[in-house]
Amino acid sequence: MKAKNDKPTNEEQIRRLVNNWAKAIRARDMEGALAYHAKDVVMFDVPLPLQSKGIEAYKMTWNLFFDSNPGGKGSFELRELKITAGDTVAFCHALLITRGGKEPQGRLTIGLKKIRGNWMIVHEHHSYPIKD
Amino acid sequence: MKAKNDKPTNEEQIRRLVNNWAKAIRARDMEGALAYHAKDVVMFDVPLPLQSKGIEAYKMTWNLFFDSNPGGKGSFELRELKITAGDTVAFCHALLITRGGKEPQGRLTIGLKKIRGNWMIVHEHHSYPIKD
Repeated sequence: MKAKNDKPTNEEQIRRLVNNWAKAIRARDMEGALAYHAKDVVMFDVPLPLQSKGIEAYKMTWNLFFDSNPGGKGSFELRELKITAGDTVAFCHALLITRGGKEPQGRLTIGLKKIRGNWMIVHEHHSYPIKD
Repeated sequence: MKAKNDKPTNEEQIRRLVNNWAKAIRARDMEGALAYHAKDVVMFDVPLPLQSKGIEAYKMTWNLFFDSNPGGKGSFELRELKITAGDTVAFCHALLITRGGKEPQGRLTIGLKKIRGNWMIVHEHHSYPIKD
C-alpha cells in the first residue's frame, strides 16, 4: 500500500495525462488538447496529410476533426489503454471510439518524453484499418 | 569520438534492429521478421483485424502481406526513421514505401522494451492515411 504523499508512478502520471487529453478532445477544448504536447510533435492522423510536424500543424488536425462534426460534442473514448513507461521515455496504445460508435473502430499510439520533469507527447499515430 | 570497444548506444542498437527487421520483410524471411518481437506483441496493421495480440497473430499479418504480393520481393523501405530511446523503453516512427511505390505513402510506429538486456518490439502500428 502506498503512503498518501507518494508521487504517482510514471504510468499513473501518463494515464492521467492521456485521459485528460481525451476529455479535452471530447469537450472540443483546443487549449486542453494542446496542453500536453511538445513543440516538435509529429502527428500521423487518420486523414491526409501523411504527417503533420510541429504544434501548429498538429493544431490544424484538430480544427479539421472538430469542424467535421459541428453539432454537439464529439465522441472520443479510449479502450484497452496499455502504457509502457520507463523513467524518461514511454509509449501507449489504445483502441478508439469516435463518430458516435459503440464499439472501437480506430487505433491510437502515443509516444512521450519526460521534458524538464513533465511527461510530454512527442508523437501520435491515429488510424482506422482498411476494410477490404 | 568513440573508442572502438564502446557498446552501441540504445539508439544505435534500435536503429540496427529496425533496419534488420525491415530487411527481413523485404527478403520475405519470416524467421527474421519475428526475431525481434516479444511474445505479447500488439499489432495494429493496415488491413483488419483492428488489433492482433501475441506473436502467433502477429505472424499471420505477415503471411497475409507476403501472400498479397506473391511475385518477387516486396518493397518495404523506411524513410525519416526517428528514434526516441530511454534506458528501458523506446519508440520510433517512420514513413514507409510499400507496394513498389517511389514516395512514402504509409506510416509506421514501433514501441520497444528492453527485456533481459535486449531491445524487443512490443507494439507496431502501420497505417495509410484516408484520402477523402
